[in-house]
Amino acid sequence: MLSIEKYQKEFVDYLEKYATVKEPKNLYKPIVYILNLGGKRLRPVLTLMTADIFGCDYKKALNTALSVEVFHNFSLVHDDIMDDAPLRRGKETVHEKWDVNTGILSGDAMLIMAYQLFENYESDVFQSLAKLFSKTALEVCEGQQYDVDFEIRNKVTIAEYLKMIEYKTAVLVGAAMQMGAIVAKATESDQKNIYEFGKNLGIAFQLQDDYLDAFGNPETFGKQVGGDIIENKKTYLYIKAMEFSVEADQLQLYDLYTSESYDNEAKVNQVKQIFETSGALEATKNEIENYTKKAFSVLESLNISEEKKQLLKTFGNQLMNRDV
Amino acid sequence: MLSIEKYQKEFVDYLEKYATVKEPKNLYKPIVYILNLGGKRLRPVLTLMTADIFGCDYKKALNTALSVEVFHNFSLVHDDIMDDAPLRRGKETVHEKWDVNTGILSGDAMLIMAYQLFENYESDVFQSLAKLFSKTALEVCEGQQYDVDFEIRNKVTIAEYLKMIEYKTAVLVGAAMQMGAIVAKATESDQKNIYEFGKNLGIAFQLQDDYLDAFGNPETFGKQVGGDIIENKKTYLYIKAMEFSVEADQLQLYDLYTSESYDNEAKVNQVKQIFETSGALEATKNEIENYTKKAFSVLESLNISEEKKQLLKTFGNQLMNRDV
Repeated sequence: MLSIEKYQKEFVDYLEKYATVKEPKNLYKPIVYILNLGGKRLRPVLTLMTADIFGCDYKKALNTALSVEVFHNFSLVHDDIMDDAPLRRGKETVHEKWDVNTGILSGDAMLIMAYQLFENYESDVFQSLAKLFSKTALEVCEGQQYDVDFEIRNKVTIAEYLKMIEYKTAVLVGAAMQMGAIVAKATESDQKNIYEFGKNLGIAFQLQDDYLDAFGNPETFGKQVGGDIIENKKTYLYIKAMEFSVEADQLQLYDLYTSESYDNEAKVNQVKQIFETSGALEATKNEIENYTKKAFSVLESLNISEEKKQLLKTFGNQLMNRDV
Repeated sequence: MLSIEKYQKEFVDYLEKYATVKEPKNLYKPIVYILNLGGKRLRPVLTLMTADIFGCDYKKALNTALSVEVFHNFSLVHDDIMDDAPLRRGKETVHEKWDVNTGILSGDAMLIMAYQLFENYESDVFQSLAKLFSKTALEVCEGQQYDVDFEIRNKVTIAEYLKMIEYKTAVLVGAAMQMGAIVAKATESDQKNIYEFGKNLGIAFQLQDDYLDAFGNPETFGKQVGGDIIENKKTYLYIKAMEFSVEADQLQLYDLYTSESYDNEAKVNQVKQIFETSGALEATKNEIENYTKKAFSVLESLNISEEKKQLLKTFGNQLMNRDV
C-alpha cells in the first residue's frame, strides 16, 4: 500500500503521459487542458487504493482510475456549460476559453475515451467495468437533471434531495472504488460492500459541503461562505429548516430566498440564524454523522485484514476532516 | 432474409417498446421524442440485414441495431445544437422544443444508453461491439470537428474533405454492418470486408448528397436545391472546381462564396455553371462511381452465397438511386 500522496503522484504521472494533443487539435486541446487543471484526484486515487486493498498491484488499475477521472472531467465540462460557470479551479472553463460547441464536442469525446480505457482488460473484466460505468454515468446524468428540476420547483423533500446528491455525486465515489475491486477480482460481496462504503461516504461528504458552505471557517473553506444561501440553493439545511420551522420562520425563510431586496451579508446572517434555531443545523450534523457511520459499518463485512480496514477508516476520517 | 420494409417495421416495433419515458421525465422525454421522429432507419436496418446475411437470426441483432440508432440520434441532438438548427425531419429540434441544456444532457444520456444496449450479449461479443462502437463514435466526433474547422478555413484539400465525410458519416454505416457481423460471429475477414463495403457505400452516398444538393431534381430531392451553395459550403464540387478552374473562375467562385451582394438564385446558377464548365461536376460523378464500385468489389471476397451478395448489391443500388 502507498500513501495517498504517492497514489496521487503515480496517477498524475500516468495521466500526463495519456493526455496528449492529437488531430484534430481543436477537439483534443480542450481535453488536455481540462485534464491538466489539477484537483485532488480523489476518485482515481480511490480506485488505485481499492485495487491494492483487494490484493492487486495498483498499476493494473491505472487505466480504470484514468477512466473515472476522464468521466468526471467530462461531467464538469458539460455541467459548467449548463451552469454558465466562468471558472473551474480558478481557471477559465472550457466553454469560456473556447466556446460552447467546443465544450459539447470535446465532452462527448471524453465520455467515449473513458469507455476506451477499459479495452486494456480481458473481456469479462471489461464487461463488468463497462456495465458499472454505464449504470453510474446514467445516474450522474439523472442526478444532474434532478438538480436542474429542483431549482425551479417550490418544494423538494429530504428523500428527493438525498437521492439527487446520491446520483449526482456519491455513486461515482462508490463506483470508483468498486471498479478497483473489479480489477482486483474481489468477490461480488466485497465489491458490493466497498461500493456502499464509497457511496455513503460520498453522501456524507456532500452533506458536509452543504454544512460548510454556511457554517465553515472562511479561512479554510476555500469557497465564499454563504454562497449557497446567496444563490438560494435548496440544500439539506434549507429543506430541513422548512420542515422544522414554525410558520412565521417558514415565511421569513421563503421571503429571504425569493425577494431580491436583501443585502447579501444580512441575508446570510438571518438565514443562518433560522438554520440554527429551527434545529436544521443539528439535524444536518446528525445526518453527516449517520452516513459516515453507515459507511464505516460496512467495512466490518469486508474480507480484508484489520489493518486495511483501518486504512480505509483513516482515509474516510481524513476526507471528512478535509485533510486530503 | 426479409425485405427492407420488413426489417424497418421489425426495428420500429422494437424501438417503440424500448423508448419509454422514465424518471426524471425532463431527461427522458426528449430522448423518446427524438427517437420517434422517424427517418428511414437505414443504419439499424443494415445491422439486422448483415446479421441475417451471416447466418444469424436478425432478432439477436435488435439490441445492436437499436444501439446504432440511439447513437445516431445522440449525434443529431448535439450536432443540431452546434449548427443552431431549428428543424429536424420537419419537426422542432430538441434544443428548440426544450432548451440547449436539455439537449446536452439528454444527448449525453443517449450515448451511455447506446453502450448499455450491448449488455445483452456475452462478454466477448460485448467487448467486440463496444470496441468498434467507441472507435467509430470517436471518429464521428473527429469528423464533426473537421467539419467545423473547415468552415472557417480558406483552403481544404480533396483528401481532407474525403476524410471528413468518411469520419462524420461513412464509418457509422460500415460499423452498423460490422456490428451485425459481430453478433453473427462472422470471421474477422468477413467483418473487415463488410465494414469496407458499408464505409465506401457511405462515402459514395455522401458525395452523391453533394451532387444532388446542386444538381438534383427539385421535385424529388426533399431539400432546397442549391442549399449548400447558398450556405457557402465547401463541398466536393466546390473544392474540385477550385482545383480545376482557371484563375479568373477561381476568383469569381471565391467572390460568389464570400460576397453578400448576390441574389440567391443568380448565385446558385452562376456557381453551378462553374461547377459544370470546370469539370468538377464530371469529377464528382466519377468519384461517386469509384466509391460505389469499390464497395461492390469488396463483396466478391465475402464468404457468403452469390444470392446474398446480389441482395447487398441490390440494396446498394437502391440506396444510390435513393429508392430506399
